Amino acid sequence: MSAGRFIALEGGEGVGKSTQLRLLAQALQADGHVVVTTREPGGTPGAEAIRAMVLANEGEGWGPRAEALLFAAARADHVDRLIRPALERGEWVLTDRYLDSSRAYQGGGSGLSDDDILALHRIGSEGLLPDRTILLTLDPEETARRLTLRDEGRADRIGGRDAAYHARVAAAFRRFAEAEPHRFTLVDASGTPESVHARILSAVSGL
Amino acid sequence: MSAGRFIALEGGEGVGKSTQLRLLAQALQADGHVVVTTREPGGTPGAEAIRAMVLANEGEGWGPRAEALLFAAARADHVDRLIRPALERGEWVLTDRYLDSSRAYQGGGSGLSDDDILALHRIGSEGLLPDRTILLTLDPEETARRLTLRDEGRADRIGGRDAAYHARVAAAFRRFAEAEPHRFTLVDASGTPESVHARILSAVSGL
Repeated sequence: MSAGRFIALEGGEGVGKSTQLRLLAQALQADGHVVVTTREPGGTPGAEAIRAMVLANEGEGWGPRAEALLFAAARADHVDRLIRPALERGEWVLTDRYLDSSRAYQGGGSGLSDDDILALHRIGSEGLLPDRTILLTLDPEETARRLTLRDEGRADRIGGRDAAYHARVAAAFRRFAEAEPHRFTLVDASGTPESVHARILSAVSGL
Repeated sequence: MSAGRFIALEGGEGVGKSTQLRLLAQALQADGHVVVTTREPGGTPGAEAIRAMVLANEGEGWGPRAEALLFAAARADHVDRLIRPALERGEWVLTDRYLDSSRAYQGGGSGLSDDDILALHRIGSEGLLPDRTILLTLDPEETARRLTLRDEGRADRIGGRDAAYHARVAAAFRRFAEAEPHRFTLVDASGTPESVHARILSAVSGL
């Protein structure tokens, strides 16, 4: 039995991760692979329960440290119950977000260092990394346009504060990719879904 | 405003932690201190929600790594929302179990090292330690006798497997105490609640 392959799609909101995950899964299945698609936070009953608890945000909500531990606990369950068993069966696992989203969204600015997030991942999930992380990139104007279309008028979510926020997240993802060029492939997310899909297929062809 | 004091009561099941916590709180209040009593896992709404999630144990249950992260997340909330604010107000905080219970119960044998548990505590709670940790000690026969009385016939909980388990936990607590003699005070938990209480009062008199 051949070992499976583990691919993560990463990037800010509005870059088309879920569409591209679906297209990639279809292409791999057509090639004869068994494909498991999943997402974070969540992906298993335990991790989805933690996700719901974090998002419920009752009362005072969670501090950044408790939140980072909860997301790491969800990932530990996701890796232990779904990702590792599928890889051991020789399947391909495609996930919409993984560790680098925690690093980009929870790390920095909240009292937690990138080293802290990586330590939580080492302890929680024995540091399991994707064979390939596809980072979808898009310029800020096009990202804002897509988010506006998607949110149909819920403009507060993508208002002035969020433009700077999205830019910070995008910059963090790029820093991670520069530090680990063998794991990351940057893919231009502009243009039609089909053209982006063709770029992703080319990015994973080596696997 | 004087800084508060933080005291943890630790030890295996059946050594009388909750009784002694109540007696100590009453004595400190009679002395004019503002006293907050709490427990782990739990102690805040967020931490209690995590405790309920861990104990619910639905489906496959949690793996040891996810469970350790969940307990560390609960502690982070407990420290952030209750313990630190009370200490900053100059109050005395007494907790029934804290970090050393995680070290004794989750560390070792489950794939997590003591260093891992301590790293989670550093990241989650900035490594906050009690000013004094009272370790209640009791010989195995007396512990078994008290647990049998308490459980009134639910003997399966303290059966053959559990005697060795309780001994392992007790040995772990003693190792932690030996490694940090300034933080720990060992208190003999045999005899009447009043005699144990007198020993504890003597142990905290220096604070």
